[in-house]
Amino acid sequence: MRFSLSRSLPGISAHDEGRAEITRTLPEEVPVAVVYDGTTHAVMMASPGDIADFAYGFALTEGVIDSLDQIEGFEEQCHEAGIEARFWLREDRQEALAARRRFMAGPVGCGLCGIDSLEQANRALPHVGDMSLRLAHREVARATDDLRAAQPLHAKTGATHAAGFLVPGQGIIAVREDIGRHNALDKLIGAMARQGISAADGAFVLTSRLSLELVQKCAMAGCPVLIAVSAPTAHALRLAEGAGITVVAFAREGGFDIYSHPERITSEVTDVA
Amino acid sequence: MRFSLSRSLPGISAHDEGRAEITRTLPEEVPVAVVYDGTTHAVMMASPGDIADFAYGFALTEGVIDSLDQIEGFEEQCHEAGIEARFWLREDRQEALAARRRFMAGPVGCGLCGIDSLEQANRALPHVGDMSLRLAHREVARATDDLRAAQPLHAKTGATHAAGFLVPGQGIIAVREDIGRHNALDKLIGAMARQGISAADGAFVLTSRLSLELVQKCAMAGCPVLIAVSAPTAHALRLAEGAGITVVAFAREGGFDIYSHPERITSEVTDVA
Repeated sequence: MRFSLSRSLPGISAHDEGRAEITRTLPEEVPVAVVYDGTTHAVMMASPGDIADFAYGFALTEGVIDSLDQIEGFEEQCHEAGIEARFWLREDRQEALAARRRFMAGPVGCGLCGIDSLEQANRALPHVGDMSLRLAHREVARATDDLRAAQPLHAKTGATHAAGFLVPGQGIIAVREDIGRHNALDKLIGAMARQGISAADGAFVLTSRLSLELVQKCAMAGCPVLIAVSAPTAHALRLAEGAGITVVAFAREGGFDIYSHPERITSEVTDVA
Repeated sequence: MRFSLSRSLPGISAHDEGRAEITRTLPEEVPVAVVYDGTTHAVMMASPGDIADFAYGFALTEGVIDSLDQIEGFEEQCHEAGIEARFWLREDRQEALAARRRFMAGPVGCGLCGIDSLEQANRALPHVGDMSLRLAHREVARATDDLRAAQPLHAKTGATHAAGFLVPGQGIIAVREDIGRHNALDKLIGAMARQGISAADGAFVLTSRLSLELVQKCAMAGCPVLIAVSAPTAHALRLAEGAGITVVAFAREGGFDIYSHPERITSEVTDVA
C-alpha cells in the first residue's frame, strides 16, 4: 500500500452571496513510527513522502546516531494504520540507546522528576563555531521566494511547510516538504546526509516561525545559518546566539532581519546570478 | 521567578536600501513539565502564561483525567530552567496512570513494536453525537476576525496562535494564546473546564491549520464544531466525520468552507447582533 501526499475532497463553500459545492486538494498526514531494533522510539504525524529522509534526519537530530555508518539496515513498511521506519543499528549504538532508555523509562514513567526533565529540555548543543561562511545580501533577500517556487505540495494544497538548503553562489539546492515544520527540516537534514551534502556549507531556509526545536536541529546538523519567513522566539534566539548560529527572520518581500552573528551576511547589495 | 510572555530584542533590519538597527517584540517560550504524583509525564515548549489552564486541559485531552474532581492537588512552580505543573491525582487515577505507564514504558523503550504503536496513534475517540447545536452563517463568517481582535500577545508579537470558544448568540466568550496551536487549544479547554463552561454548547475557533491532534482534542472535550483559519488535513477530516464533528476551514474574509456534518451551520444570512 502507498499513501498519497494529498487528496481531493468535497466541501461546501459558504459566502454571504450563497453556497456552492467545491472540491479542494488537501494535504494528507499519516502516523510514522520510528523503530530501532524492533522497538518504537517515537510516533509522529507526517506527510507520507520522503520517509527514509525523515527517519534518517530524525535519528541524526535526536542524537540516536552521529553518522550514517552506525545504521546497519533500514526498511520502510506501509501498514493500513501508517508507516513504519525500521532501523537496525550498529551494536555500540544499540547499547547507547538501551542505556539512554534505561535512564529515561522505568516501570512508572520516565523516572525523572520535573526539575530534571526541565534541565534535559535545555540540553547542551554542539557549537557551530566556523565563521567563514558568507552569504550575499541578495541571496538572503530572495531565499524565501526561491523556496516558495520549489514547493509542489504547497502549490497544490496551500497548507504545507518546507525546508530548503541555500548554498552561496548556487541558490537553493535541496528542498523537502511536510505538513509539519519540524518534519520538513528533519527530511532535509536526512536527505543531505544521505547525499553527502555538508550542512556546514550553507543556510537552512524555513517557511515557518523559528522555535527552540528548529535551532536545536540546526545545531545538531552543524548548519551555521537559519533563515525563516516568520518570527523567532526569544528563547530560540538565546540558544542560537550561544550555539554560534546566525538567525535571519521575517525574510520576505526582499527584506529581512538579522538577530545573531550578523557577520555571515554581507551588507553589500550586489546582483546575484 | 516569573517568565515574560514576550521580550523586546535588538536586531538589524536589512533591505536593498540599507540596514537599520531595530527592536522587535518577540514571543517567549519556556519548557513546561507536566508532573503527576512526582513523575514527569511530558515536557512541552509553551508560552509562559495560563499554565494551570494548559496543564488541566492537557490532562483532560490526553485522557489522564475525565473530570476535575480526579485532581487532589495542583501547584505551579517556576525554576530557572522552566515551569513545573505538578498534579496529585485521586488514587484510582494514579493506579490507572501507573498501569498505562507499565504498558507504555519498559526497560528497553516503550515496549511496543511499530505496528502496535501505529494502531495506538489511531486511537478511538469519543463520539460527539448531539446534533442540536446551531450556528448562524454570520456568526461563523466573522468568527476568525472576532478571535483576532482578542489576541493581545499576537497584537504585540505577530507570531502566536489562539483558540477561542464561540457560543451562538454570545460571540467568542473565552480565548487563550500560545506559540503552539496545540497548546492554545489545551489552554482553552482547561480554562473552560475550570470555569464550568461546557464545550458542548459552542465551537472552537482556531488561528491555525487543522491537523489530526486538534480533532482528537476537540472530541475529547466534547465540542461539536471546529472552525479554523487555514486548511484541514484529509486525515483530520476522516476522523472528524467519524467523530460527529463539524469542520469549518479556510474561515477568513467573511467566507468559509464546510467539510463535515454541515447541518450545524445554518445557511440563512441574517444579521447577528
